[in-house]
Amino acid sequence: MTDSFIPSGVVSITTDFGHRGPFVGTMKGVILNRFPEAKIIDLTHEAYVHWPAEAGFWLERSFRYFPTGTVHLAVVDPGVGTDRSVLLALADGQLFLAPDNGLLAGVIEATQASVIKIDDAKLVGIALQSVSATFHGRDIFAPLAGSLASGQVMPESLGEPTLDFIPSLIEPPDMRGKNLHGIVITSDNFGNVITNIDQRDISPFNNPTIHAGGHEIPLLRTYGDVAPGELLALVNSLNVIEIACAEQSAAELLGIGRGSPIVVSEGQ
Amino acid sequence: MTDSFIPSGVVSITTDFGHRGPFVGTMKGVILNRFPEAKIIDLTHEAYVHWPAEAGFWLERSFRYFPTGTVHLAVVDPGVGTDRSVLLALADGQLFLAPDNGLLAGVIEATQASVIKIDDAKLVGIALQSVSATFHGRDIFAPLAGSLASGQVMPESLGEPTLDFIPSLIEPPDMRGKNLHGIVITSDNFGNVITNIDQRDISPFNNPTIHAGGHEIPLLRTYGDVAPGELLALVNSLNVIEIACAEQSAAELLGIGRGSPIVVSEGQ
Amino acid sequence: MTDSFIPSGVVSITTDFGHRGPFVGTMKGVILNRFPEAKIIDLTHEAYVHWPAEAGFWLERSFRYFPTGTVHLAVVDPGVGTDRSVLLALADGQLFLAPDNGLLAGVIEATQASVIKIDDAKLVGIALQSVSATFHGRDIFAPLAGSLASGQVMPESLGEPTLDFIPSLIEPPDMRGKNLHGIVITSDNFGNVITNIDQRDISPFNNPTIHAGGHEIPLLRTYGDVAPGELLALVNSLNVIEIACAEQSAAELLGIGRGSPIVVSEGQ
Repeated sequence: MTDSFIPSGVVSITTDFGHRGPFVGTMKGVILNRFPEAKIIDLTHEAYVHWPAEAGFWLERSFRYFPTGTVHLAVVDPGVGTDRSVLLALADGQLFLAPDNGLLAGVIEATQASVIKIDDAKLVGIALQSVSATFHGRDIFAPLAGSLASGQVMPESLGEPTLDFIPSLIEPPDMRGKNLHGIVITSDNFGNVITNIDQRDISPFNNPTIHAGGHEIPLLRTYGDVAPGELLALVNSLNVIEIACAEQSAAELLGIGRGSPIVVSEGQ
Repeated sequence: MTDSFIPSGVVSITTDFGHRGPFVGTMKGVILNRFPEAKIIDLTHEAYVHWPAEAGFWLERSFRYFPTGTVHLAVVDPGVGTDRSVLLALADGQLFLAPDNGLLAGVIEATQASVIKIDDAKLVGIALQSVSATFHGRDIFAPLAGSLASGQVMPESLGEPTLDFIPSLIEPPDMRGKNLHGIVITSDNFGNVITNIDQRDISPFNNPTIHAGGHEIPLLRTYGDVAPGELLALVNSLNVIEIACAEQSAAELLGIGRGSPIVVSEGQ
Repeated sequence: MTDSFIPSGVVSITTDFGHRGPFVGTMKGVILNRFPEAKIIDLTHEAYVHWPAEAGFWLERSFRYFPTGTVHLAVVDPGVGTDRSVLLALADGQLFLAPDNGLLAGVIEATQASVIKIDDAKLVGIALQSVSATFHGRDIFAPLAGSLASGQVMPESLGEPTLDFIPSLIEPPDMRGKNLHGIVITSDNFGNVITNIDQRDISPFNNPTIHAGGHEIPLLRTYGDVAPGELLALVNSLNVIEIACAEQSAAELLGIGRGSPIVVSEGQ
């Protein structure tokens, strides 16, 4: 890796494990076993199950707010126990560790990260001695994250650089005629609908208008710009187009969710 | 501020962000960026959305259990990006940071806190360089909390003391004739119904009886004082009247929730 | 206690409190008040309410992944405020603290732990000065966990060893004729169904076949061994039989949950 990694001791964890059961807590126990000084932060554990794209999106849009030297561990892993690989990416002085299933594609593309496909043989002595077929988060990823965050293991020792990894499951938005077509990725706790349309994608429009769920929605600045119950679109804090309904749930009101089409057109 | 603040390094966070998405985790990344030694505690992230009163109630009834020198950060902020102010309160050696929307009114009233309305100009160099219109939790509150918890920024440097802030959205209970009328604020994970009636409010009654959801309910000491499935009222661990159903959900059984009326009368 | 306890500073917390309200956060405030250097890990707070067995199962199957010297605090406590006792168990260099209601029975049985029934008189000066009738997690367990994790209080000072404690609410699986009969304990965030049948229990079978919800299900190695939507059974990462449906919810598909019967027979 051309870039260098100086660990800060911070480890973030992103999973689709939810909060039922001891799964995330056990991973933290393993990390502390390897590295008692680790500072562990939950990014989210309520990523869509079995769909690495949302977890990757959250990570891509959040990591810049973490300290240089953070290890980001992300486990959405329907292929656990099969021969899928483990990727390690280094970008902007931060490390990203995840199954090779598209999860990290957005981070890598956004950063021109250097990427290593981890050599299984190099995990001997790092992974737990007994590796289960169904919980690599605990048995491989957690001890590896602890070892990287403590500086005991250097990223470049884990395998060869590669350009061969699974691409993102989310297509970027595309222009069809005069309109930009994107999709909904997810929604948040308020029912705000979050799309794959980046702020830069709408720069060709003088007066962008958003079409979603049969509504034509104006692009404004913040929730308080409309009365409670009214729809608006805005460039949100993650720099993508979001559709909101002031003090209510736009997702419910519009009946849209993951994968729903979003169109941007030139307003009147 | 007449009181003094000596930071302990502890930061508590209360929001209505839920656990979907990276929003709380990103705030923690920002705090650690400012103050790597911060000890961050989640108070709750499942406060009612857009209703600052519940978050403020939880905080008012919990903060005394935290170390002196704690910074409590609370973000339930439907007015984010508008010109609403940010308040800083100092009480009992602890700091409270929240939007000026009534959230902190209960804490301030319960403690005779000294209150500062933060001068936006003082946030330059403290807030992130780029402040979004929709996520001040990340861009303003988190870096400010980190800076206060580390001692890099002194509370009194942030603005002038004020007595002018938004009052609580919850009215205190009131006597009408011989009966005390209160309301339900919220319920907990067990379906215990939590009211705005403080232990002190019922001191005029010799034998207080609670009326809720069409039932007359005796005031007892703890859940085990009745058989499973039976209703009881008690003064709970937050020092307010709670209505419970042993090993079941009183909220479901009674069909009551936020805002429902609760009446206390003199029993037979 | 014959075994010795050298605290690592790590405290795990397991409850049925959910994430609504400040209850878990307040316990952490109390722990930090006693022991500012505590490293607090959430095991889960979404254990079934009022049913100590699931919390105990999670703990029994997870604790070995935590550092030696960890204090595990578990509060599923329908008897709070009654005269139920508090247990302290020491096993493999780790401490376990819970109400005496069966929660710790599985841990104790799996480890031949030494067990102390805590003498209430010994809690004076350790518990908070004012103990509520409904939240011993905050008022007794949290300060005690902090005091044990810091080394200020020695386990053996808290009471006499005992062999008298409440047994588990979960019966072990039993052989009836040629078939092994067990039950479902719980399910995880993916809808994987988790049983009380340990890997060792099926060693008498050459080709174990699992019967659940009217289906006959093959025992395989990992989720990727079947096509998405197909059922499989496996020995999971907790070393018990789990029934899964690749990339879908087995619990929903089979309509089974806590307490449902599971039968293992010799396959063809």
